[in-house]
Amino acid sequence: VLTKRIAVLPGDGIGPEVCTEALKVLEAVSERFGHQFELDVQLMGACAIDATGDPLPESTLQACFEADAILLGAIGDPKYDNNPAAKVRPEQGLLRLRKSLGLFANIRPVTAYDVLIEHSPLKADRIQGSDMLIYRELTGGIYFGEKGRTADGAYDHCTYSREEIVRIAHLAFQSATTRRNKLTLVDKANVLETSRLWREVVQQISPEYPSVAVDYLFVDNAAMQMILNPKQFDVILTENMFGDIISDEASVIAGSLGLLPSASVGETAALFEPIHGSFPQGKGLGIANPIATILSVAMMLEHFGMYDEATLVKEGVDYALRRKVLTPELNSDNPYTTEQVGCFIADYV
Amino acid sequence: VLTKRIAVLPGDGIGPEVCTEALKVLEAVSERFGHQFELDVQLMGACAIDATGDPLPESTLQACFEADAILLGAIGDPKYDNNPAAKVRPEQGLLRLRKSLGLFANIRPVTAYDVLIEHSPLKADRIQGSDMLIYRELTGGIYFGEKGRTADGAYDHCTYSREEIVRIAHLAFQSATTRRNKLTLVDKANVLETSRLWREVVQQISPEYPSVAVDYLFVDNAAMQMILNPKQFDVILTENMFGDIISDEASVIAGSLGLLPSASVGETAALFEPIHGSFPQGKGLGIANPIATILSVAMMLEHFGMYDEATLVKEGVDYALRRKVLTPELNSDNPYTTEQVGCFIADYV
Ligand SMILES: CC(C)[C@H](C(=O)O)[C@@H](O)C(=O)O
Ligand SMILES: CC(C)[C@H](C(=O)O)[C@@H](O)C(=O)O
Repeated sequence: VLTKRIAVLPGDGIGPEVCTEALKVLEAVSERFGHQFELDVQLMGACAIDATGDPLPESTLQACFEADAILLGAIGDPKYDNNPAAKVRPEQGLLRLRKSLGLFANIRPVTAYDVLIEHSPLKADRIQGSDMLIYRELTGGIYFGEKGRTADGAYDHCTYSREEIVRIAHLAFQSATTRRNKLTLVDKANVLETSRLWREVVQQISPEYPSVAVDYLFVDNAAMQMILNPKQFDVILTENMFGDIISDEASVIAGSLGLLPSASVGETAALFEPIHGSFPQGKGLGIANPIATILSVAMMLEHFGMYDEATLVKEGVDYALRRKVLTPELNSDNPYTTEQVGCFIADYV
Repeated sequence: VLTKRIAVLPGDGIGPEVCTEALKVLEAVSERFGHQFELDVQLMGACAIDATGDPLPESTLQACFEADAILLGAIGDPKYDNNPAAKVRPEQGLLRLRKSLGLFANIRPVTAYDVLIEHSPLKADRIQGSDMLIYRELTGGIYFGEKGRTADGAYDHCTYSREEIVRIAHLAFQSATTRRNKLTLVDKANVLETSRLWREVVQQISPEYPSVAVDYLFVDNAAMQMILNPKQFDVILTENMFGDIISDEASVIAGSLGLLPSASVGETAALFEPIHGSFPQGKGLGIANPIATILSVAMMLEHFGMYDEATLVKEGVDYALRRKVLTPELNSDNPYTTEQVGCFIADYV
């Protein structure tokens, strides 16, 4: 019996609902394969601010440190939105969590599912067969540099050390060797010194991965290419801010945010979460799509080395897609609830 | 007789070809309306490096200072690409020109042309009727902050003064009042201090424009919304780096880069250029689309207050689109050459 300890941070809005369904699927995996998953549910985000004044209370951080993996629902609440000057904000908890646990690589697979192809705003022939994996650096760059105000202005400093680039570049190259052997670095090396360093490091590392063809795209061009010809991409590697933009843009290819999982990994810790937000308007209505969170659980199982288990979960998702057991945004004619979709996939497993 | 002095910087690749056609149209305007346009053709970009070692020779800068407006073709050559560490690069000339002339606002209209709607990678119903104007700050932010190397890394500093934001915000608000009265600020105020300053300034200015509804979008969300629902946008206002990415992304809506003009304006100077690059592979083949440059001339005429003249040029472009007098990327069955498209529109005028 394999035992894994999982810190569960349901968060705000629809976070708790989608986590509940994902945990049903995890429970089904545990029964089927005889693993033991110990869950430690903790507060984070707006709900944590409301309860403790801190979006990432000490006990939550402690639980994350002690866990083999973290499952996060979503954070954010309208009362903190459009109020960027608020002293305490849910996002700060997320940024602090990433930094404290050293989650330096955010990994997002983006696939165009055939059955959903009409749901994408893009024409079918442009996206059919798209299958990319985005590696976004997550604990450096302008997100974590010095920032502040001057007498008449404001500043944000973007910095990268060679080592911060090296470690994620290796992950991205390794992953490319298990896929189609193509890596695209997205940067702005014609303007930024940090981008020139990224390019240098990637050029230096690339001989260690002779099978991988490396390509360099300026971020403005990448933002265009992502829509014009997404099939050209296999593994994308990029810094924190560009990754934030490009990976959200890429999500339109899938036809729904509700399908896209992500992993954020470091030397020791690993966090899994859907890429969608807390969608507060949808809270409690049973309309939230749990698939992104369920696929995040599949990524977690892969992280544990439980490949058969992960494959089974993904098959369950495929089956739900084919049978159209889907929430309203993907099946307006005959919508299923969050819970029904979760149970359907858990039953499959 | 109105006399205007225009510095013409044809640049590299297809730049000279598209400028030639745009100048034909300008010549037709001059004959038809009896204006006098004095042209001062100068080197800039890779061709200027080759000739003088400097992408922006002193004489070119001088000519730009003395002109009423500047027409730029395109700059860039493959021998400087993928070599971001090269000491002298064509882009440096462009950045220096923007800064020296104080061209702080880059303005890009993006429209979905009905006749070209099938050329967009986006589904017709998503883009039909899209009509936005993007105001990108052009002489501040991370482009022009301090940058350099440390022992083991690199840095780029992003700074904005209140005044740098105020002046472009007023332009964007004013323009919104002449359009659909909506302004969207794109920023990352949940992470960046400079973005929080942008939001503050826009909030402070907005009461001066009571008819304009202001909306705030995080840049990651904006990159998604641009594809999911481009019709929601009227005027977009954003800082330099985000504007670079978002405006190139937006260009996919038009179905071809070859149609999109831009203006870069400051207190005194104004530069007009197509948004496409120098497309060196297309040089001399007669396949470059001159329309973006011709529409840049239309923007220049508007800048001169020559509204009837500008309208006529735009009608000429519409006529070419309707009659399918278009270069190969938009008319593969019966393609016209760069020169034929230019002559057709000049004849119309
Ligand atoms: C909430 C925000 C701080 C965060 C980010 O910008 O990293 C989010 O957009 C994401 O991508 O996870
Ligand atoms: C060539 C490059 C420096 C430039 C920029 O990033 O501003 C270009 O992409 C543009 O948008 O005009």
